Amino acid sequence: VKNVMTSRSKWHVPASIVSKRTVNPIRETVFNMRAKPNPDKELISLALGDPTIFGNFKIHESCIDAVIKQLQSYKANGYLPAFGCEEARKALAEKFSTEDAPLTIRDIVLGSGASDALNLAIGALCNEGQNILLPRPGFSIYQTISQSKGIECRYYDLLPDRNWEIDLDQLITLIDDKTACIVINNPSNPCGSNFSRQHLESIIQVCETYKLVIIADEIYEDMVFGSTKFYPIASLTKSVPILKVSGLAKRFLVPGWRVGWVFIYDQNGILDEIRDALLSLSNIILGANSLIQHSIPDILFNTPDEFYQDTINQCERSASVSASVLSEIRGLHVIVPQGAMYMMIGINIEEFKGIKDDVEFAAKLLEEESVMCLPGQCFHYPNYMRITLTPPIEKLKEACDRIREFCIRHHI
Amino acid sequence: VKNVMTSRSKWHVPASIVSKRTVNPIRETVFNMRAKPNPDKELISLALGDPTIFGNFKIHESCIDAVIKQLQSYKANGYLPAFGCEEARKALAEKFSTEDAPLTIRDIVLGSGASDALNLAIGALCNEGQNILLPRPGFSIYQTISQSKGIECRYYDLLPDRNWEIDLDQLITLIDDKTACIVINNPSNPCGSNFSRQHLESIIQVCETYKLVIIADEIYEDMVFGSTKFYPIASLTKSVPILKVSGLAKRFLVPGWRVGWVFIYDQNGILDEIRDALLSLSNIILGANSLIQHSIPDILFNTPDEFYQDTINQCERSASVSASVLSEIRGLHVIVPQGAMYMMIGINIEEFKGIKDDVEFAAKLLEEESVMCLPGQCFHYPNYMRITLTPPIEKLKEACDRIREFCIRHHI
Ligand SMILES: Cc1ncc(COP(=O)(O)O)c(C=O)c1O
Ligand SMILES: Cc1ncc(COP(=O)(O)O)c(C=O)c1O
Repeated sequence: VKNVMTSRSKWHVPASIVSKRTVNPIRETVFNMRAKPNPDKELISLALGDPTIFGNFKIHESCIDAVIKQLQSYKANGYLPAFGCEEARKALAEKFSTEDAPLTIRDIVLGSGASDALNLAIGALCNEGQNILLPRPGFSIYQTISQSKGIECRYYDLLPDRNWEIDLDQLITLIDDKTACIVINNPSNPCGSNFSRQHLESIIQVCETYKLVIIADEIYEDMVFGSTKFYPIASLTKSVPILKVSGLAKRFLVPGWRVGWVFIYDQNGILDEIRDALLSLSNIILGANSLIQHSIPDILFNTPDEFYQDTINQCERSASVSASVLSEIRGLHVIVPQGAMYMMIGINIEEFKGIKDDVEFAAKLLEEESVMCLPGQCFHYPNYMRITLTPPIEKLKEACDRIREFCIRHHI
Repeated sequence: VKNVMTSRSKWHVPASIVSKRTVNPIRETVFNMRAKPNPDKELISLALGDPTIFGNFKIHESCIDAVIKQLQSYKANGYLPAFGCEEARKALAEKFSTEDAPLTIRDIVLGSGASDALNLAIGALCNEGQNILLPRPGFSIYQTISQSKGIECRYYDLLPDRNWEIDLDQLITLIDDKTACIVINNPSNPCGSNFSRQHLESIIQVCETYKLVIIADEIYEDMVFGSTKFYPIASLTKSVPILKVSGLAKRFLVPGWRVGWVFIYDQNGILDEIRDALLSLSNIILGANSLIQHSIPDILFNTPDEFYQDTINQCERSASVSASVLSEIRGLHVIVPQGAMYMMIGINIEEFKGIKDDVEFAAKLLEEESVMCLPGQCFHYPNYMRITLTPPIEKLKEACDRIREFCIRHHI
């Protein structure tokens, strides 16, 4: 054995730089909180964006039947193309193609959840040292993915007083030569907002002017309340190239199944290199579970529309019930959602004695009332909190009542 | 709208640098081959490491029952911790813990397939600009992952004349201050080799001397023939820290299910930062399919050992049948495998008229005989080819006969 390098004479195994900058702000905030629920009150969590945990939202039996069929065929256990199985992509193209925004099988790449789809899309478009435009408030995975890759996150503001529309004037000031793309999340987590057609057209106009590729996270597509209408942004432009991200998680209530996708909308061949990039990047983890991929045609075509409408109706009812309680509370400011599964609540923090910010508000609320909400800081939006609309209505009411008690007790 | 930057006045959307360096050598080689099978002969593919495609290897019904149980419970569809569900990690710890290499639930991180587990392990240990030691011949995903991250791949040689043992003298010359870790794949894809206890101890000795963390890809663990014995490398050292990677794919014949794992063996706290790094990195794609994760206890404990032994016996029989035909062929040189699902065959390329290398050999073989093998170049090992032992024995015999015809026809 030849002489040992001095640097290798002792064990020293530091974590990689990339791993250190891969942060999940939700986990960080909640872990650092260290608050415990009040042992005398049953915990009601309004924190997680997982509709399956309470048992009131059940997946449709067509989805179960679809997977059992694949299991019993003994033919859906093998490797699939890393970018997704052909039948699944074909079914998705058929289901989601429209005249204004046509899709073929070549325009679809599957991933392991919408998270992986976002990872592929951001990874294909952005280099280390470039920047990406993200919504504030916004879902934290965009930051987790971008920061991990050394991409600078720049935040454009959503305006609570205008139903969380984008502040386009402020957005424009963020764009420079190193801006690789913009992420637009509509309907929004955490805001529960849904952009009007007109607002979407204004966004497209900006992207056209500044040649900004759009990553459109539309995982809550069609999940809108009442007479509100959802417009897929790709249906409103033929010139701005769009990578749309969505998945099974929310529509079919199966977030654990980990199947998502990227749709490539690019009528002018601007994204030719990006198509290849998505396929290359899919070689790292080799794609999503084969049983679910093979089940996608059945899942898409055998699940009745009423199932999805039921989910929406429940969320809408929860939104209206909780908004009516919470909007009466002094010191809080409710922004009634138009879709998705969440509601943002402003906290006039200076009106609460001895509570310094939203994180402390959430911690105390948990300790005293055993109600868990996510502080706005998880979404880069201090002095707000996000609640989830998916608990059973009685639990949600109970939680809102406890929030009221808490606020009355602490309001100056 | 303020003045538009000149750099943003036209659409220009190049693929990211990372995507361009994310290459799958198997796909590259096979795509560039462009050969078509002979239309007059039925295609027999010995190319893919997927035991499910021929129908002779069927998954055990206990696995099917396990997943159906989870589907029917309606309780396995939600988000799990990104690093894996507790029951699954508990079952794995119970199943794989030994006195020499103990495991607790904290030592286990699940991923979406062994590929994702490798991506987590390499990503936690290595920085861009460092180097990683990889086997030659070796499975291509190590290169795909490492190159994608800007880690330099350095190849240590496996010696065909010594049953593919590592050339440790050559390995030592590769190590420098920037060497982050070594990947050891045992039993090996593509070699079908299985290291002796003595050889493993020599490897450990080198790693101890040079303070090299080991990533042990043992996805073919226990898959060895006859009286050969497999030793998990972690069972032979208490001082060298090891990240062992494995998964459901091969043992349970479900590569499409995409569940793999990293086991952390580190009795001296050398990998403390790496533990956290693995958890951080798992936040990007949020882990593997929940139905399969929840099924892991049943899969591990309800599948009879005979099932696995059957798979091994079939592969062993295939190895011996094909080796006996192929070893008689002039111009070929068979290295009889000791395990896994593959066999490497040396081609004395100068003995074949007008065939320049293994890629051309494989292309012509496909065009003339409709037999598809993977050229050694896919594994950085020219003038070899890899065949898979999983086709039904009659097909495999037929393929070997055709290879003989082909060789006789082209031998000088
Ligand atoms: C806006 C948004 N995008 C993406 C995701 C991630 O989806 P998946 O679970 O399919 O990775 C979520 C999950 O909550 C989300 O809210
Ligand atoms: C040596 C080796 N490691 C890892 C893998 C990848 O396994 P998975 O399909 O679980 O990602 C394979 C698959 O063929 C393999 O041969």
